[in-house]
Amino acid sequence: MNICAPQLADLPPSRGFVVPSPRRPRVLAVGVIGPGRVGSALLGQLRAAQPRLARDSGLELKLCGVVASKRMWLDCDDAELNGRHGGAQIWRPNDLDAFAEHVRGGDGRHALLIDCSASDEVAAHYPRWLAAGLHVVTPNKLAGSGPLSRWQAIRAACASGARFRYEATVCAGLPVVQTLRDLLDTGDELLAVEGMFSGTLAWLCNRHDGCQPFSALVREAHALGYTEPDPRDDLSGLDVARKLVILAREAGWPLSLEDVAVESLVPRALAGLTLEACMERLHELDAPMAAKLVEAQATAGVLRHVASLDRHGRARVKLVVLPAKHAFAHTRLTDNIVQFTTRRYCDNPLSVQGPGAGPEVTAAGVFTDLLRIAESLEARA
Amino acid sequence: MNICAPQLADLPPSRGFVVPSPRRPRVLAVGVIGPGRVGSALLGQLRAAQPRLARDSGLELKLCGVVASKRMWLDCDDAELNGRHGGAQIWRPNDLDAFAEHVRGGDGRHALLIDCSASDEVAAHYPRWLAAGLHVVTPNKLAGSGPLSRWQAIRAACASGARFRYEATVCAGLPVVQTLRDLLDTGDELLAVEGMFSGTLAWLCNRHDGCQPFSALVREAHALGYTEPDPRDDLSGLDVARKLVILAREAGWPLSLEDVAVESLVPRALAGLTLEACMERLHELDAPMAAKLVEAQATAGVLRHVASLDRHGRARVKLVVLPAKHAFAHTRLTDNIVQFTTRRYCDNPLSVQGPGAGPEVTAAGVFTDLLRIAESLEARA
Repeated sequence: MNICAPQLADLPPSRGFVVPSPRRPRVLAVGVIGPGRVGSALLGQLRAAQPRLARDSGLELKLCGVVASKRMWLDCDDAELNGRHGGAQIWRPNDLDAFAEHVRGGDGRHALLIDCSASDEVAAHYPRWLAAGLHVVTPNKLAGSGPLSRWQAIRAACASGARFRYEATVCAGLPVVQTLRDLLDTGDELLAVEGMFSGTLAWLCNRHDGCQPFSALVREAHALGYTEPDPRDDLSGLDVARKLVILAREAGWPLSLEDVAVESLVPRALAGLTLEACMERLHELDAPMAAKLVEAQATAGVLRHVASLDRHGRARVKLVVLPAKHAFAHTRLTDNIVQFTTRRYCDNPLSVQGPGAGPEVTAAGVFTDLLRIAESLEARA
Repeated sequence: MNICAPQLADLPPSRGFVVPSPRRPRVLAVGVIGPGRVGSALLGQLRAAQPRLARDSGLELKLCGVVASKRMWLDCDDAELNGRHGGAQIWRPNDLDAFAEHVRGGDGRHALLIDCSASDEVAAHYPRWLAAGLHVVTPNKLAGSGPLSRWQAIRAACASGARFRYEATVCAGLPVVQTLRDLLDTGDELLAVEGMFSGTLAWLCNRHDGCQPFSALVREAHALGYTEPDPRDDLSGLDVARKLVILAREAGWPLSLEDVAVESLVPRALAGLTLEACMERLHELDAPMAAKLVEAQATAGVLRHVASLDRHGRARVKLVVLPAKHAFAHTRLTDNIVQFTTRRYCDNPLSVQGPGAGPEVTAAGVFTDLLRIAESLEARA
């Protein structure tokens, strides 16, 4: 049963509320980089939405190309060879600059590049693309948490009028970056951010009750696909630190990854090993994690992996003991949560909670950024 | 210590991220109706933000007038009589149509009316204003939860290209309406909404532990200013039902207030009395509320005042017993909370929680709507 069904049957399209219909038709050329799990989910969501957006918002989404790791597809190739290949897509060796040029087109249309890769090389192209007037949306954390100089170059490049949005870099589809942006833009002052930004570590903390060794839980999470291929990428806290850097920069703090005090859960002895060797010695996690659990239980508290930014711009990522009454003690499964404490939200914070990973919700976060940009596009002849 | 301070010192304005600077300057004429607690807070926030918005977003907010219950101020009057009154504002008898005409101006500029009144008469003007191209933003629930025919007329009037936004009608400044909008616009399907939309009833439920009669808590909340002047307006659940109707309509359900199954906490005997008589007989609340508490304690549960919308469009507002593990059992003080269960957020819902009342946060919700509209304005000569 689909609650959206009556929307079109009984009422004028709700969409008309946010982007009134009719509006002068606008065309947005879109190119997707990285057709992996998120990129593929996004392509599916965009294709499904195209007719509705055209009808309700006067927005024509024109999918012009897709770049994979080695090859790329450009719609023009299919058009040229139309028919001869029975509608099959034509792929050519990938070339990011040629791809961007093609999506941009020669007719002054609005164009958007969506980077669903996890590639630093792609992120390195953002400043040039934005300066050329191409909008960029991405769930790729490498720009927002990478070198500060590059990030500042990206912001400076937006002077072209091009937009750079990245909601899905923090907690996937949950409204986190936009919520922080709105607080600041309406004149509020951020006093603190606290959050759990790793669904994997949240799940491990929820399950870590002493009934089985921590390493067994890591193996289970690994088998369930909850962890990165190398679980150390989660356990190190680095991915969480990247998200905190993105939020800190959003709040105006010129932070870099090395400014975040990160307590890794990976014993030094395991850090340098191959994945195979590390998985064999995973039991070396058990003693320290058992000790942490004892520490928590001694105060009837719970263990949680928390990222925090204080009003002085100090950023920390660590495993902490929280009282059982703390909001973070009640998160479930792989939930992410973020709490903003501000001048206006000082007694109780504003908090957003929910699943913070997965291809569909991450793609939806990217899609939302696309819609924000589309709403602000001026009609062009 | 203000975390926003380094924003301008160390970095290009963050604002540039969402509305890139420089953009062609846009003027937005603004008129505020209802300079009460929310309206006054909003005027303060807008005045404080004007220089920043002009510099970072190329947005010139032009405050053209304010309408109170009996009088109105138009900037043109001050201009005409400039000096003669030593800068004092000139007020004239209020006239909504003349006010709207003045804010709209004759030069085809973008114009926005902000209704911070709680007046049904003002809401009745929305369709005409929107049809005339005036944008409307409001925390006033009477349009979104009033007669369906009027609401549909409001939506139809948006065909002019004017926008109607009302984030602050539900949970004040918390991102609730926009979050639901984004879920639907990216192709998700709403399966259920559950929430606590009354800070007053949340506070009463949190405090209702049997140590003192429920009526004593109501008197305390009344004295603290947590309740409406007439506490029955909170206890009846009507205000909560209005918020649920607004969300249901947003999701495409053509619901009206009479379609919501509301269980009032006000005994029938007290419903018809004067406020004074009712306050004297408030103790008649105690027996039924004590019985509810016993019922909750019998299952080690908690009492919570919950609004819910299911996938079939059924809307309910009632006091329910929830298990101590339920997310709603952990809300604090006057927190509001809303949970969206969707096709994508089905294992765990997407939830937003925090203070859902107060002039500053409500004004910020209105301000956010203003910024959304401003971002979508095309530059006009």
